[in-house]
Amino acid sequence: MEYRDKKAPSYHKWIKRLIKDGKQEALHELLMDLDEVEIANSLMQLKLKYQVDVIKALDREKTADVMSQLQDHEPIIESIIEKLNTEELGDIVEEMDKDDAADMMALIDDEMVQEILDELPAEDREELQTLLHFDEESAGGIMDPDVVHVLKDQNAGDATKRIKEYIKAKEIDEFYVIYVVDEHEHLIGRINLSQLFLADDQEEIRNIMDPDVIAVSTDMDQEKVASLAKEYDLVTIPVIDDHLRLVGRITIDDIIDVMQEEFEEDLAHVAGTGDEDVLDTSLIKASKQRLPWLLLGLVGGAMAAFVMRGYESSLARLPQVAYFIPVIAALGGNIAIQSSSLVVRGLATGELHTKQLMFRAWKEIRIGMINGIICAILLLFIAWWITDKWLMGLTTAGALLVVVFLAAFVGTVVPMLLKRMDMDPALATGPFITTTNDILGIVIYLAITISVYNTQM
Amino acid sequence: MEYRDKKAPSYHKWIKRLIKDGKQEALHELLMDLDEVEIANSLMQLKLKYQVDVIKALDREKTADVMSQLQDHEPIIESIIEKLNTEELGDIVEEMDKDDAADMMALIDDEMVQEILDELPAEDREELQTLLHFDEESAGGIMDPDVVHVLKDQNAGDATKRIKEYIKAKEIDEFYVIYVVDEHEHLIGRINLSQLFLADDQEEIRNIMDPDVIAVSTDMDQEKVASLAKEYDLVTIPVIDDHLRLVGRITIDDIIDVMQEEFEEDLAHVAGTGDEDVLDTSLIKASKQRLPWLLLGLVGGAMAAFVMRGYESSLARLPQVAYFIPVIAALGGNIAIQSSSLVVRGLATGELHTKQLMFRAWKEIRIGMINGIICAILLLFIAWWITDKWLMGLTTAGALLVVVFLAAFVGTVVPMLLKRMDMDPALATGPFITTTNDILGIVIYLAITISVYNTQM
Repeated sequence: MEYRDKKAPSYHKWIKRLIKDGKQEALHELLMDLDEVEIANSLMQLKLKYQVDVIKALDREKTADVMSQLQDHEPIIESIIEKLNTEELGDIVEEMDKDDAADMMALIDDEMVQEILDELPAEDREELQTLLHFDEESAGGIMDPDVVHVLKDQNAGDATKRIKEYIKAKEIDEFYVIYVVDEHEHLIGRINLSQLFLADDQEEIRNIMDPDVIAVSTDMDQEKVASLAKEYDLVTIPVIDDHLRLVGRITIDDIIDVMQEEFEEDLAHVAGTGDEDVLDTSLIKASKQRLPWLLLGLVGGAMAAFVMRGYESSLARLPQVAYFIPVIAALGGNIAIQSSSLVVRGLATGELHTKQLMFRAWKEIRIGMINGIICAILLLFIAWWITDKWLMGLTTAGALLVVVFLAAFVGTVVPMLLKRMDMDPALATGPFITTTNDILGIVIYLAITISVYNTQM
Repeated sequence: MEYRDKKAPSYHKWIKRLIKDGKQEALHELLMDLDEVEIANSLMQLKLKYQVDVIKALDREKTADVMSQLQDHEPIIESIIEKLNTEELGDIVEEMDKDDAADMMALIDDEMVQEILDELPAEDREELQTLLHFDEESAGGIMDPDVVHVLKDQNAGDATKRIKEYIKAKEIDEFYVIYVVDEHEHLIGRINLSQLFLADDQEEIRNIMDPDVIAVSTDMDQEKVASLAKEYDLVTIPVIDDHLRLVGRITIDDIIDVMQEEFEEDLAHVAGTGDEDVLDTSLIKASKQRLPWLLLGLVGGAMAAFVMRGYESSLARLPQVAYFIPVIAALGGNIAIQSSSLVVRGLATGELHTKQLMFRAWKEIRIGMINGIICAILLLFIAWWITDKWLMGLTTAGALLVVVFLAAFVGTVVPMLLKRMDMDPALATGPFITTTNDILGIVIYLAITISVYNTQM
């Protein structure tokens, strides 16, 4: 029994030492003792040349397990694939679950994929070809075509026999739900394995099955599949084709991977990064993914500078006006991002609908204004104290209120509009929304402050 | 078969109509036709007074299912609980899974909890009391004490009989893994239900079980439990006490809830919001949770204004210097948040260790500098063009490079230091890191630009 409470030991150091010392035998023994998670974690800590040595020291089955485990770390898989030949890859693909194999093959160039497919048994080849043809982010792209199913007009005993044969033929190790189909392969029900386990041999499948089975179509977006699974606490989701025939199942481990992927995508939008892997070592790739957001900030900043140039003489006469530009920009940006991130999450989880646009905007504006008024009162005194001019406190606080109002509005409305236009609402969090508000805030603030002072003087 | 591809119908409108028209019978019929997910979703769209009518129209079992479904929406549960009496709550608790019941009871005040416990059968009461005593965010707090287990010295046939009795007694509907214990209840192995299903009656449990079972202790943090489950693709995790005795199991639906919770916490830190529920209607609560981040921005902005006051005469003489403060602050903030959000994610998933601090900081600095140099070159020309002074372009670009260097460093090092001090690294994303960089950026920029101009003139 493994009692996981301490930190994992650093196997990668031992592995590196064994490779360096050329101890092939000892390396093989160590690796065969480790499970696929430990090997995958070690690989992520090793340099490419050692990674390939590790893979070559594994047997086919273990390699397949490790490659499945590494699924979320494309750069590592890609670099390992490059070092393997068609035959080696074919052997690995044959051992992998079909859905994992299809994911891996999406990273290999088309010509090689064809060569690998040619080496596979006919049935495997056909199934893989079908999977490769689905969009990677659709239910079809993440499903496993091997799904345990029985006929409605069987009794539990016959069904059990049929299942035993099927899982032996398909080498399935784990399944929790059995799907029921009619004679045309149409999905018509489900039975938990535990129910079948408890049933008497004579009971009819038709009588023990649950006809309320939730299924998804092959082209449903994976994010939607994940939210259905979460809502209904499903461990497996059946996938059906256009004719309502059962064509595959999506297991919970893939659902969890999708959730993680989608979370990280949302977070990347808020933070203005790309979908880079933490452990990826390519500086250029990381820089490239982050640059667009910075260029957006640069363009926004240039526009702000351009606006300020229009007030050059006023700023020279009254440089104190410039002091509060950073605080106005920061608070406007913060409030906009607070509203937008909440709206984006609500839209992603389905708790919020675009129909509620004005209702939600009004709520966000009120929340923003409560905080805006508190901040404005404090800013009034701060600005008064720093510049020793009560009018400066008053105009700055007033400008802040206008900026906050607009920030809450923009932060709510923009993601909802993007969603209505079928674009990713998460694009409107992070750098995009803060940049917009920086410019908006500075324009409003300067217009208000300078015009008040011009009438005063 | 339900084919989920279209939007869910708006049951809440029908429900509201039936309540308004006083059609009790029709309401009950409609509700009994809907599943717990549909009812929970409808409740979230209804006002409190209608929510209570809905709950009262359900039978106990359905109410229990709906309350479990609403778990992540504490405000709704809390307001419904308030409207129910001890007896009604006791009935609901008895129908719920123990772990869900314990979560719900954590929202009820202690006196009432005691009253509810007093009404329960002795065994249920004891189990619930044990659960309530664990930290809500620990393995003990999310586990279900009812776990299907068998003895190692049984054969498959006897084990099957024992399981059938156990799940009938405990009213367990779904289980996928059977744990194996010795005569002292120590956890020593696991069997997938599918393996037991395939085994012959005479086979010894000891021979078919997998002794490599991963277990967690009752006090392990739920985030760690979730990452173990994800790493090892586990559908259920067994929980053991200090004496290594099996005391419960955590199911995948709870793991998914934990993942969602932890992710939303991270996102809330980056966006500077609280753990507010999208559908919560309290403006004051939402404002209160968001205010601290805004006050942080306000303090930062006040400090920036204070720094700028030190340069008053220079700014009056050369107001153009002020034009580029927004762009310097924005880019510094963006780069810091890019680095910090990546580091925070890496720490959360365990892909990054605090030991790699300097290695990681150096990587982030190089990524930041590649982009910093590109932005600086562009800024050089932008500033030159806007002010018509090449020296302004040069100093602004130079200052940007220094700011970017520091931003990448701070963005990487601060979350890692927080983690080392056992604090939540996610605190150092979002408003905290941008505010720090705003001030730092403005100080550096003004110091560089103004001193260059002072020596020039």
